[in-house]
Amino acid sequence: MSARYPAPVARTRLSIERGTDKPLYRQLREALEHEIAAGALDPMRPLPSSRELARELGVSRNTVNTAYLELESEGFVEARPRSGLFVNRDMLRELRRGLPAAAVAEPVDWSRHLQALPDAGLPEIAKVRDWQSYPFPFVAGQVDVSSFPRLPWLRALREALEPAHLHDSLRDGVDEDDPMLVEELCRHVLPARGIEADPAQVLVTLGAQQGLDLLAHALVRPGSVVGVEEPGYLDARRIFLRAGATLRPIEVDGAGMVPPEDPAGLSLVHLTPSHHSPTNVTLSIARRRRLLALAATHDLLLVEDDYDSEFRYHGSPTPALKALPDSERVVYLGTFSKFLAPGLRLGYLVAAPELVEELRRLRRYRIRHASGHTQRAMALLIANGQYHRTVRRRRTQLAQRWATLRDALQAELPWQVEAPPGGVSIWLPGPPGLDCVELAAAALRQGVVVERGDIYFTDPERHRENLRLGFAAITPEAIVPGVRILAGLVRRQLG
Amino acid sequence: MSARYPAPVARTRLSIERGTDKPLYRQLREALEHEIAAGALDPMRPLPSSRELARELGVSRNTVNTAYLELESEGFVEARPRSGLFVNRDMLRELRRGLPAAAVAEPVDWSRHLQALPDAGLPEIAKVRDWQSYPFPFVAGQVDVSSFPRLPWLRALREALEPAHLHDSLRDGVDEDDPMLVEELCRHVLPARGIEADPAQVLVTLGAQQGLDLLAHALVRPGSVVGVEEPGYLDARRIFLRAGATLRPIEVDGAGMVPPEDPAGLSLVHLTPSHHSPTNVTLSIARRRRLLALAATHDLLLVEDDYDSEFRYHGSPTPALKALPDSERVVYLGTFSKFLAPGLRLGYLVAAPELVEELRRLRRYRIRHASGHTQRAMALLIANGQYHRTVRRRRTQLAQRWATLRDALQAELPWQVEAPPGGVSIWLPGPPGLDCVELAAAALRQGVVVERGDIYFTDPERHRENLRLGFAAITPEAIVPGVRILAGLVRRQLG
Repeated sequence: MSARYPAPVARTRLSIERGTDKPLYRQLREALEHEIAAGALDPMRPLPSSRELARELGVSRNTVNTAYLELESEGFVEARPRSGLFVNRDMLRELRRGLPAAAVAEPVDWSRHLQALPDAGLPEIAKVRDWQSYPFPFVAGQVDVSSFPRLPWLRALREALEPAHLHDSLRDGVDEDDPMLVEELCRHVLPARGIEADPAQVLVTLGAQQGLDLLAHALVRPGSVVGVEEPGYLDARRIFLRAGATLRPIEVDGAGMVPPEDPAGLSLVHLTPSHHSPTNVTLSIARRRRLLALAATHDLLLVEDDYDSEFRYHGSPTPALKALPDSERVVYLGTFSKFLAPGLRLGYLVAAPELVEELRRLRRYRIRHASGHTQRAMALLIANGQYHRTVRRRRTQLAQRWATLRDALQAELPWQVEAPPGGVSIWLPGPPGLDCVELAAAALRQGVVVERGDIYFTDPERHRENLRLGFAAITPEAIVPGVRILAGLVRRQLG
Repeated sequence: MSARYPAPVARTRLSIERGTDKPLYRQLREALEHEIAAGALDPMRPLPSSRELARELGVSRNTVNTAYLELESEGFVEARPRSGLFVNRDMLRELRRGLPAAAVAEPVDWSRHLQALPDAGLPEIAKVRDWQSYPFPFVAGQVDVSSFPRLPWLRALREALEPAHLHDSLRDGVDEDDPMLVEELCRHVLPARGIEADPAQVLVTLGAQQGLDLLAHALVRPGSVVGVEEPGYLDARRIFLRAGATLRPIEVDGAGMVPPEDPAGLSLVHLTPSHHSPTNVTLSIARRRRLLALAATHDLLLVEDDYDSEFRYHGSPTPALKALPDSERVVYLGTFSKFLAPGLRLGYLVAAPELVEELRRLRRYRIRHASGHTQRAMALLIANGQYHRTVRRRRTQLAQRWATLRDALQAELPWQVEAPPGGVSIWLPGPPGLDCVELAAAALRQGVVVERGDIYFTDPERHRENLRLGFAAITPEAIVPGVRILAGLVRRQLG
């Protein structure tokens, strides 16, 4: 034993067990840590050299070195040039301050840290979460997974990891989107909606919803007045409320949103022109022009939420508001959720370059960007034509389900049912006396999932005669029997 | 010609061209829309029947019916029971109000709609965007794509679309995460960091960054004081500033963050205990305990950003702050970005169930959730052991690059270089006189991408002697020649 080192601590206190799961260096490190914390090692004297300690314990020098390196990097010991390792005295002091026992026991009062959100007063959309386990799921917003283009999508995902695409799929894009996806959107997706856009006008989102959230945070400040459709999409209401907006409901009739007579004070209007959510009516061309004129004269921004324009079952889709002349103040929101799958979380928006730049700045510190791999795979799916084939196939499927559901409702319900040829749900305004809350609950007990229509109104109590039936997730064979059960309940309720 | 209908407009005004790309019904619809807008059709009289018009134009009745259906759904015409289709007079009125020509020409003044963000004063991290096209990319935050586990990841993606997983991969989860991924995190990922968590304590994010953003919005209100490491991670500073916080820089030395003597007024502290960003030092155990004690006595929340704890090249990783007793006030942030790929955008956080519930409520109206398909594939990758194999393989690769870079820096640079054994970059505090801004620019001109170290300080001007070299994206062969070029520039600058 060298005179330079104290008697090794190992002999008396450090014990190492062999044959356990815990590696030797780790046992040693923990034992040393314990000794240091307990004050058993003299901070004035160097620790034993690794050679010494290894010999004492019958372990390799490497084991001791690894334990020492860990202790050093965590500050338990410090290396002094030409003197060896010493217990770190600052560390000792801090260890001794320790935890005040009383404070520890106190449970955290989270209400001190959290605050109520400004949308707390709105009803929750009472979605049935396990809808897929019911025989008749007339839910909106979900899709029948059997129609998902599994093989083309997997092929696109695989291609996106080939050398030509690997970097773009995996990189940290910081605030950039996949340039190929943006290019494909401009060349092959937006033109189908009549929209001419260049890449500086396009932002990729995690679905139309993220577009709304980014817009709300860029454009709304406390006190801003935002026009929303009445009835209308609940998520949009919540998102604008959370950003501090005051909502002004704007009436919707059979030709879509009624352009407000006096738009003074409004800073932004959210609308669903292709298929109004939830009633599915299409905004008339005349009203589109009127809204654009109002936007220009009042410097008003229009958010065109085009969440399911692909699904029109007669004729071609109406051109987007964003496709009309003088639509600089229109922000267009699109999504891949409705025809591919909501679980992919991919959408896009089109707006003036100045606004896109600002939204990109916001997004960069929220999520950076959507998955590069998913973006590149989608770009490849569009480029190879599978995207359009999938849209067409899905449209044919949905047109059939739409017709089946409409026919069944017209045959079974005791009032005249109208259904505009589009969208993924049918809106059912019932006669006075119908109570959607009770009806939806009774239907659920018989395996039929339908959505309450009252929640889409500012004053739900006065609109309980409305129902909404989605047809994108239900199999075609289940439609007619499901409607029959519902109709039986309706007749019983109307008595 | 029936007496019931007026002379068909088709004869004089409607023209249909054959052999063009535009379908006939669409041409017809546009011609009719034009006639209606021009006031050429008498609103008091019904439009010609589809049979009539079809005969006049020599097209099928179906073509006419499709055009009529579109015009009806857009409000140009309305069907009156037993009388036929009529021009909609409300529509005519609205069309005539039209656009005021003067307003249209006005360009949009976006500065009226947008506002400056509260982080506008911070420096942008001047990342070189096309780093992959340089021969010596010592960038941090990116990965060498050749080390990505392509085949296991594609297998996991394929398995996630098999019947047993399809629903979970594609559904709209609203505010839910993939339960299998959460389970796998609790069982197989968090225990490696010493963390015991149940599913109610876990939230899946789009990367550690989204975790920070959600936390900032749940916990920070204007005037909140947030402690940040000095030097420290710029993105965290920006995110807290944007949420309205005032930042209080807290010194970092060789043992990590120095626990503040007087934490009064602080509501939250962000720190990177495993490998401090950007210097890579590890927070000492004693300071961890001290910070937990301060948190308990001052009801202070600690955000533990554990972005690359997997990458420790000697010994085992330090247990997380969240793994210590009395860590209820610690929020743990993890990510898959660093060892798999930043482009996948997937991470997670662990916190008290009350806080997770609130963050979930916030996330639901921002992005809903991360891609279900990506989540399920990651869950399968963890469950089948490939995740851990990949981490181990990547750690071995990175350990080699770390050693190569450290050795090269020690051999080439004219001062003593120390590098804690972990992370994906080496922090280089240079001697007085070194100017990282000029050096990084000069290096770039010779194909060497290094990061400026000044930007991580509150006062960058006073810290221009610091550099940061990442080693996760550069190939091992490029390390030594890259360091030689850099060292030449350093000697010239100091010389």
